[in-house]
Amino acid sequence: MAVMDIVADVPEALVSERIIRLQAVMQKEGVDAFLLTQNVDLYYFSGSMQNGYLFIPSTGDATFYVRRSVQRAKLETAVKVAELGAFRFFGETLAQHYPYLFGKESGLRIAADLDVLPTQLYAKLQETLGSAASCTIIDGSTYIRKLRMIKSPWEIGRIEAAAKVVSESLTAALHVLREGISELEWMARIEYELRIRGHIGLMRMRGFNQEITTGMVISGPAAAVPSYFDGPAGGLGLGAASPQSVSRSIIKRNEPILIDIGCCVDGYVIDQTRTAVLGKLPETLQRAYDASETLIAKAEEMMVPGAPCSKLYEAALAGCASANLSDHFMGFGADQAKFLGHGIGLEIDEWPVLAKGFDMLLEPGMVLAVEPKFTFPGLGVVGIENSYLITDQGARKLTQFKDGLILLP
Amino acid sequence: MAVMDIVADVPEALVSERIIRLQAVMQKEGVDAFLLTQNVDLYYFSGSMQNGYLFIPSTGDATFYVRRSVQRAKLETAVKVAELGAFRFFGETLAQHYPYLFGKESGLRIAADLDVLPTQLYAKLQETLGSAASCTIIDGSTYIRKLRMIKSPWEIGRIEAAAKVVSESLTAALHVLREGISELEWMARIEYELRIRGHIGLMRMRGFNQEITTGMVISGPAAAVPSYFDGPAGGLGLGAASPQSVSRSIIKRNEPILIDIGCCVDGYVIDQTRTAVLGKLPETLQRAYDASETLIAKAEEMMVPGAPCSKLYEAALAGCASANLSDHFMGFGADQAKFLGHGIGLEIDEWPVLAKGFDMLLEPGMVLAVEPKFTFPGLGVVGIENSYLITDQGARKLTQFKDGLILLP
Repeated sequence: MAVMDIVADVPEALVSERIIRLQAVMQKEGVDAFLLTQNVDLYYFSGSMQNGYLFIPSTGDATFYVRRSVQRAKLETAVKVAELGAFRFFGETLAQHYPYLFGKESGLRIAADLDVLPTQLYAKLQETLGSAASCTIIDGSTYIRKLRMIKSPWEIGRIEAAAKVVSESLTAALHVLREGISELEWMARIEYELRIRGHIGLMRMRGFNQEITTGMVISGPAAAVPSYFDGPAGGLGLGAASPQSVSRSIIKRNEPILIDIGCCVDGYVIDQTRTAVLGKLPETLQRAYDASETLIAKAEEMMVPGAPCSKLYEAALAGCASANLSDHFMGFGADQAKFLGHGIGLEIDEWPVLAKGFDMLLEPGMVLAVEPKFTFPGLGVVGIENSYLITDQGARKLTQFKDGLILLP
Repeated sequence: MAVMDIVADVPEALVSERIIRLQAVMQKEGVDAFLLTQNVDLYYFSGSMQNGYLFIPSTGDATFYVRRSVQRAKLETAVKVAELGAFRFFGETLAQHYPYLFGKESGLRIAADLDVLPTQLYAKLQETLGSAASCTIIDGSTYIRKLRMIKSPWEIGRIEAAAKVVSESLTAALHVLREGISELEWMARIEYELRIRGHIGLMRMRGFNQEITTGMVISGPAAAVPSYFDGPAGGLGLGAASPQSVSRSIIKRNEPILIDIGCCVDGYVIDQTRTAVLGKLPETLQRAYDASETLIAKAEEMMVPGAPCSKLYEAALAGCASANLSDHFMGFGADQAKFLGHGIGLEIDEWPVLAKGFDMLLEPGMVLAVEPKFTFPGLGVVGIENSYLITDQGARKLTQFKDGLILLP
């Protein structure tokens, strides 16, 4: 049988290096093994996203137990692939393959990505593993999130490729932006441009109940409607069953058009925001837009290795206070989001977060989307968002689309 | 502050009826309350998808505890809305609001949708609820899945609206299907047509790690590549980080083009498959395509109230055996999917499932997508898929696009 065109994607050396790093964390934390369950985590640590469980012992070789498709997994990863077989025997299989772990007298501590693993499946895993050894599955999601924060040059290349796709797609779609088009219709055009350039159709998000496919185009008053979405702007959406992002609102002259879009190309996401206007922004909004540029410039300056994430958020709050815009920053009133930026990579909501209490220090290799925005109920949302790589020399912008308000006739 | 255009969507009477039905199940099962956590479940039982927890006691009024946006939730649901406040005090808040439950001597049994709730969040909920009462959170996901199986006339109307969107979009996109276009490019066009007609951008799927935005257009050998996706066909995809659905393969003459697409409009999904060919199918594939039409006709006949779901799958297997197509049914070899059809509604993978061991009986109000398909490695996939409502008079087809192989010059 021909299995055409399926090849390993993530370099084998990179996969090995990631596994070794995770093993070092496990050894330090006194964890015996890690069981990866989520598609993105599987891809990160094996290079394959087939359906199964990746078992990484704290010492020794990993095994990817695959339900489907075994033959495809073997082509995608250099990690050892085994058939998962009947789920209820998974514990026994592991005990046979890893006798030096499952033969331990004391109880086994196995970490898993419990921030995303559904409880029902967790219980089933606990049961089958528990049938083979005294064993506790503990939450290892912070280990994963911390490792994934630091991007390799190969990953930066992928993020840059996604940045190029967004830039080209927005440039192409701007040609059809006109008074009278609906947010939905123009977004459909942006999505078409993104898709033909390789966007996989959605941007993966780790947070429970959060959904994003390409972001949002929200204009005028519809942009300023509060929403459940964990971001500074939500949008009116298409009804209670899709209560965020684009609506059927018509784009009008002299109203801000917030274009907060991204894509996922070959696994990696990019996130950028530009504000456009057909005509001229009302003075209040122009002033707020200018403030967003000031804030992002300030953040660019501050993003050096060793800077605490929370300090960047504090600086932004101080900037808003002095510009008399505190009430409008990242949403309005009770619906303000409490951050300035977030990590991006395989998912759109990675670590670190530029937020209060997030005291982690910036390190070379981190990639962050910084998105100062201001919400004015009844008027709209304005702001800017760029993505940056932290380097020894400071922040390097990965976003390719040019900065500045997009003024259209 | 103007919160424009936000209105209740699900009729208030329908929400009340659903809550009363869930309460009846709780009373029968000896459960004290249900805590809904997932966005789709929240929408079903309240009409709102804002971020929070819906608490439904086995007797008495429900409360939707909302983190964000409280003001939007109040406009979307007639259920009582309260601010969630600090999460760690959620247990105490519940104890204050529901003293007749939390004052019980014996331990409280609170059900939740544990098939989707992440383990980490489950542990936090267990902790805050446990601080207020002796309390166990049990898995109530089957109650939800069973209630949601039976659609109301209002829901059928929404599914029909989605069926109309898919039918119109495919009709429009067929005008640009030509030799030499890539799967990706043609899919981008279908998605554009779906989107401008109100598709929310993704189809929700309950299964862990499963992703679907609009389905797949897969052609020739690229269609027959096995994948992790829990369906009869996977597709080559766009690389290891998106290993299913469309690829950059070029659509050629005399090869099958499997168009398995759907959309989500106002919350409800539809799922349909047609096979197209530019020219003529090879004889083996034409024969298999004809068999898929025979199988779906047989299923249509058998879909009457009282028929066991598993019998429909058995009948399809028998049909395949007599047509000598068993090895090709719903995938090939080790990668065969083991079902004939699945429920649809707010999610694409609802109950019931037409599969072995699924002995539930069909009932009026169920909506099923039936999708007999045949996979030929190196050649492609052919088949058909329609969605049906079970009525007292038998199966009523909801799919609007006309049946039959799409023959293009």
